[in-house]
Amino acid sequence: MKKIVVIGGGTGNFSVLRGLKNNNVDISAIVSMADDGGSTGILRDELGVLPPGDVRQCLVALSNSSNMMRSLMNYRFENGGLEGHSFGNLLLSALEKVTGSFEKAVEEMGKILFIRGKVIPVTTHQVRLKMILNNRKVLEGEKEIYLSQEIDQGYKNIYLEPFPKANPHAIDEIMNADLIVLGPGGLHTSLIPNLLVDGLTDALRNSQAKKTFVVNLMNRKGQTTGYKVSDYLREMIRYIGADIFDYIIVNKQNPSLELIEMYADEGEIVESDIKDERVIYASLLGEHKEAPKKDLLKRSLIRHDPKKLAQELMKIVNHL
Amino acid sequence: MKKIVVIGGGTGNFSVLRGLKNNNVDISAIVSMADDGGSTGILRDELGVLPPGDVRQCLVALSNSSNMMRSLMNYRFENGGLEGHSFGNLLLSALEKVTGSFEKAVEEMGKILFIRGKVIPVTTHQVRLKMILNNRKVLEGEKEIYLSQEIDQGYKNIYLEPFPKANPHAIDEIMNADLIVLGPGGLHTSLIPNLLVDGLTDALRNSQAKKTFVVNLMNRKGQTTGYKVSDYLREMIRYIGADIFDYIIVNKQNPSLELIEMYADEGEIVESDIKDERVIYASLLGEHKEAPKKDLLKRSLIRHDPKKLAQELMKIVNHL
Repeated sequence: MKKIVVIGGGTGNFSVLRGLKNNNVDISAIVSMADDGGSTGILRDELGVLPPGDVRQCLVALSNSSNMMRSLMNYRFENGGLEGHSFGNLLLSALEKVTGSFEKAVEEMGKILFIRGKVIPVTTHQVRLKMILNNRKVLEGEKEIYLSQEIDQGYKNIYLEPFPKANPHAIDEIMNADLIVLGPGGLHTSLIPNLLVDGLTDALRNSQAKKTFVVNLMNRKGQTTGYKVSDYLREMIRYIGADIFDYIIVNKQNPSLELIEMYADEGEIVESDIKDERVIYASLLGEHKEAPKKDLLKRSLIRHDPKKLAQELMKIVNHL
Repeated sequence: MKKIVVIGGGTGNFSVLRGLKNNNVDISAIVSMADDGGSTGILRDELGVLPPGDVRQCLVALSNSSNMMRSLMNYRFENGGLEGHSFGNLLLSALEKVTGSFEKAVEEMGKILFIRGKVIPVTTHQVRLKMILNNRKVLEGEKEIYLSQEIDQGYKNIYLEPFPKANPHAIDEIMNADLIVLGPGGLHTSLIPNLLVDGLTDALRNSQAKKTFVVNLMNRKGQTTGYKVSDYLREMIRYIGADIFDYIIVNKQNPSLELIEMYADEGEIVESDIKDERVIYASLLGEHKEAPKKDLLKRSLIRHDPKKLAQELMKIVNHL
């Protein structure tokens, strides 16, 4: 069975994993540990745990348990001291306290959810994502970076503090992969944070796996305004240290005008500006669904369709 | 297989259920819905859920899952907005929100914990326990009653408000039981609240099951100060409306002087004052263990040994 390693965090990873889950492949998800917004941020601050949010989403994506259990994991309390916490985040944090280890907690939650595959934190150290803008302002934490409206004015650097060692299990997965998938997902908040972990890009460059970059559907205003496919690629290459990609998957389907208008305040569609044999154009848009109302951060309404995306990835796998 | 129905709430029920779990009997636990202290009280107030605490303890007692899962369910968060909440309480409350039904939530949590037997809330209505003292003071809520130091001065009445219908599943269990076990447990806070539910005592009086009363080990100062076995029995009969008991199990083992001294502020040992063929005297004390530190209410240090108690109950079952 071919081994696919998916690298990212948050909803982007969810689409890829959910789509791949029902295919005959061995799946591992490597997940960014930089999240500090919403429920996750509160749990980090109050309990001193590692960030559960992105890991929870990946576990739910790979879960073979009932719809009820998946709803339970994503259920957000609406009142009192628990307000805004997703139940799955509380489960991971309580498991971390009881087992004394975040990785063990992820493993146990995987058992409870009967997941297919593995979910692996990119590092097991507590880190904060920081960004220095061209105007010398320092943004502290993923949430602040996610909400910033001036990143598109340029930034000098982005880094994790303290500089963390990669989780050796993540390195093993990368070295043993047949296909590695990076993206889709927030460029500075979900994708790059994985690349900032000591040892990860070495592994990416050295792994014999084929590497695929799934480019985002939409730019994010104030962050990647006006980015084209080449800009995404350039940023990835900057942090990986080499152009490692064998395939670049780009959406060619236009959202409805209604959706584009609805999304106008958030950002515009990513245009392709490269002629490259590695680019695979495909229609990848999901059905329009309402974003969960109680989410603490605004989420994209225009998303990859898990099935369509998985189809493209499986075409690659089947040619390996 | 003989059917045993255990009626109570809290730690008393836990001892009986934990002891019976490994015997070849069909176990159902009927649980009081009056708890409103600690984590349970906060969840009732803030989320409008039914009280999870006593049900959680019964589910854990009947669980066949790993020690880790049982520790997880009893794990209490130590900081921030989650402080004092046991994880199992949050699970039950989230399940109630997701499934829309407390009974369904109990059933689902039972599956997650691989429980042996059934746990059944005595009513599925929101109720508050109230007590009118002889001095006309009204105590509102189980927590206030539990903490009161003047109940032993006498009380006029204790009742649930609003007066709730019994859960029909609880009635079914009682009518189909071979043996019904009442106690041990807080007399006014765990045992009597079950008897105050409309339809429950009718079922108890009419059921063909043998009925056993397990008398508490210790009195609680300010509540049952100076109570002897006959006093406990009298109170139970008052609320059941008849002396239904076929067996009365009384501890005959003395705790160490050290433990009695340590417990002196809480209450004294229950002495037996009745000569009655129904009384079974047995050595029932458990090993001395520290009470969980983060419990919001003070818990008894002198407890029934689950195994010894179950042995006495199984002797009865084997003679049915």
